Amino acid sequence: MAAEIVNSESELGDGVEPAIDPAFALHRGGKMAVRATVPVRDADDLSLAYTPGVAKVCSAIAEQPELVHDYTWKSQVVAVVTDGTAVLGLGDIGPRASLPVMEGKAILFKQFGGVDAVPIALECRDVDEIVETVVRMAPSFGGVNLEDISAPRCFEIERRLQERLDIPVFHDDQHGTAVVTLAALRNAARLRGVALGELRVVISGAGAAGVAIARILIEAGIGDVAVCDRKGVVSPDRTDLTDVKRELAGFTNKTGLTGSLGTALAGADVFIGVSGGTVPEEAVASMAKDAFVFAMANPDPEIHPDVAHKYASVVATGRSDYPNQINNVLAFPGIFAGALQVRASRITEGMKLAAAEALASVVADELSAACVIPSPFDERVAPAVTAAVAAAARAEGVARR
Amino acid sequence: MAAEIVNSESELGDGVEPAIDPAFALHRGGKMAVRATVPVRDADDLSLAYTPGVAKVCSAIAEQPELVHDYTWKSQVVAVVTDGTAVLGLGDIGPRASLPVMEGKAILFKQFGGVDAVPIALECRDVDEIVETVVRMAPSFGGVNLEDISAPRCFEIERRLQERLDIPVFHDDQHGTAVVTLAALRNAARLRGVALGELRVVISGAGAAGVAIARILIEAGIGDVAVCDRKGVVSPDRTDLTDVKRELAGFTNKTGLTGSLGTALAGADVFIGVSGGTVPEEAVASMAKDAFVFAMANPDPEIHPDVAHKYASVVATGRSDYPNQINNVLAFPGIFAGALQVRASRITEGMKLAAAEALASVVADELSAACVIPSPFDERVAPAVTAAVAAAARAEGVARR
Repeated sequence: MAAEIVNSESELGDGVEPAIDPAFALHRGGKMAVRATVPVRDADDLSLAYTPGVAKVCSAIAEQPELVHDYTWKSQVVAVVTDGTAVLGLGDIGPRASLPVMEGKAILFKQFGGVDAVPIALECRDVDEIVETVVRMAPSFGGVNLEDISAPRCFEIERRLQERLDIPVFHDDQHGTAVVTLAALRNAARLRGVALGELRVVISGAGAAGVAIARILIEAGIGDVAVCDRKGVVSPDRTDLTDVKRELAGFTNKTGLTGSLGTALAGADVFIGVSGGTVPEEAVASMAKDAFVFAMANPDPEIHPDVAHKYASVVATGRSDYPNQINNVLAFPGIFAGALQVRASRITEGMKLAAAEALASVVADELSAACVIPSPFDERVAPAVTAAVAAAARAEGVARR
Repeated sequence: MAAEIVNSESELGDGVEPAIDPAFALHRGGKMAVRATVPVRDADDLSLAYTPGVAKVCSAIAEQPELVHDYTWKSQVVAVVTDGTAVLGLGDIGPRASLPVMEGKAILFKQFGGVDAVPIALECRDVDEIVETVVRMAPSFGGVNLEDISAPRCFEIERRLQERLDIPVFHDDQHGTAVVTLAALRNAARLRGVALGELRVVISGAGAAGVAIARILIEAGIGDVAVCDRKGVVSPDRTDLTDVKRELAGFTNKTGLTGSLGTALAGADVFIGVSGGTVPEEAVASMAKDAFVFAMANPDPEIHPDVAHKYASVVATGRSDYPNQINNVLAFPGIFAGALQVRASRITEGMKLAAAEALASVVADELSAACVIPSPFDERVAPAVTAAVAAAARAEGVARR
């Protein structure tokens, strides 16, 4: 409770009313609840929703397992799973301290996608244990949204879970960010009248988001993508690479750049920052004319948007108080809503690309340098993404209805 | 979808409108949903409920872990955990087919106790794996309600989970049934003007419910309790006993009965049926004058209530269409609500006894042979049980506030 008080009054004596931080006030008692969607008012209701009526529904599912999708909430509820190892910019704060983020995520799922979601914060960090735990609880859920799990463990956990499960597994810190970034980049390119394939892109950050952004940009047809970590461009000649970065070096950086981020940026068309670090003004100044700068570190962008605007034609950040906010909430609610709608067994690359295209299209008519991506509160977003993802799932053969 | 149709019309030809079973119609799409309890309408809301505002709440919990109870929904949400091995009278139908029951349980928690609950149906049957899985997900929950897990595994799972966790673990099939049975028996004894200690009780069924009922009755002061399984009275001379039944033989049957259920019932004051079997009329006729018959098998009581009434002064069943329904919903919502209210670390025997006493007291003024237990829809029940359990938790030193 002390934490709720902005200015502790303990040394101020009696009679001083402490100021309550509005974030703590809002979080008191949590941010979500469960509700019944059927009546439970009398014995008749109970005899349908519970015994004896429920027994025939259970028996039907036992005989025809796919009926679980029709007669339970499974196909509309997503587990928001974390181990609390990479929470926001706070890092490894553990499962309990991560719960406010997971609850926040759950209510965003509901608010923006109409998808029910339940926070599952796990007390284990071992990759095998996390995978086994999620596999065991999976019968209860229609999808798994992995959240705030540190790299490189997150890559293996996602891959192994998707191999084992017949429901979508989606690490939002990777793919949500990647989808929204691609959507913004598509619109920025449209605005400037260039094809995606003509752009040279430099990504700062080789964690969950950086790796996923590199992948989706290449899938989308951008041939020239270089990724930098703290030691510079990820390239095959480096001897300090993790397995994931070694793989990354294999499919990015086709021109064989080496050296620092600053070196890579000289003449580049696009900077995408997901590092949490900073980029000096000179480096941005060295980019190609009319460059795009997506400085997405939160709360402090890699370069201040006002400075970036001196050199770049389009500037995006992760912040809500500047134009062009790259916000995952533009993607994950609709992506899961679409996948659940058709009971997709997984979320394919094609579904992610379709989500990005749909998201970009929402602002096609109002496209400008200050509007390459819609607002999170644009009500056209979730329906557009949902429909595109559902259609792509059918086209890719992963839909089950 | 075929399962929804009561009378399949396949052989009836076209043009016949199939009747829809109301239980299937009600279950379509599931019975529950999640909702946000805080506004998420605009960027200001989002900045409090999600980033950046949520970060300071996470940091506060990281520094003071007990704040998780104040600022998340943890302390108001219960995991309803099953492996689907002993679902209603249906038996081992697996996790998916058990989900309608778990959802039903979840909405009863909400409706009757104001407690949020989430179905967690597990794809594993190994005791070690179930225990590990629940321990790992426990940071997200304020309590664990075990449900429909087969005996004798349920005993070990509950014991080991409670040893490992600092939140209440409660196997409702055991203790919920036991609490309600004790409450009804207390009132039946009051009505007849006898002390509990004077009663000789025979329980038919040595599974989860039978064992727990035997325990709570002995805790409550009934000295003479014999438990029968399909082979007769559980007694130390039998060589076919499981570990749990061997333990049961050690603390029940103090007069050393042997032989069949029928033999045990001769002269007994109370019959408690939780077996699913049947009891012949002659056996009930052989009981003591003014006996109590609690024939709780569902949907078919061990003996028809009308027949039992020929010999017994008080008859109770598990059915809603006869007086004196022994229904767990009278206990578990209030028991968890009380435990969560004071953040109890476990649910002690004293808390269960207090719940039974409170439940019995609700109908003290209207006590009659047809009313030894309140209706599930009696609105006095949950508040009375909640208050009694919270007070008992404080008295027993397991409350944390």
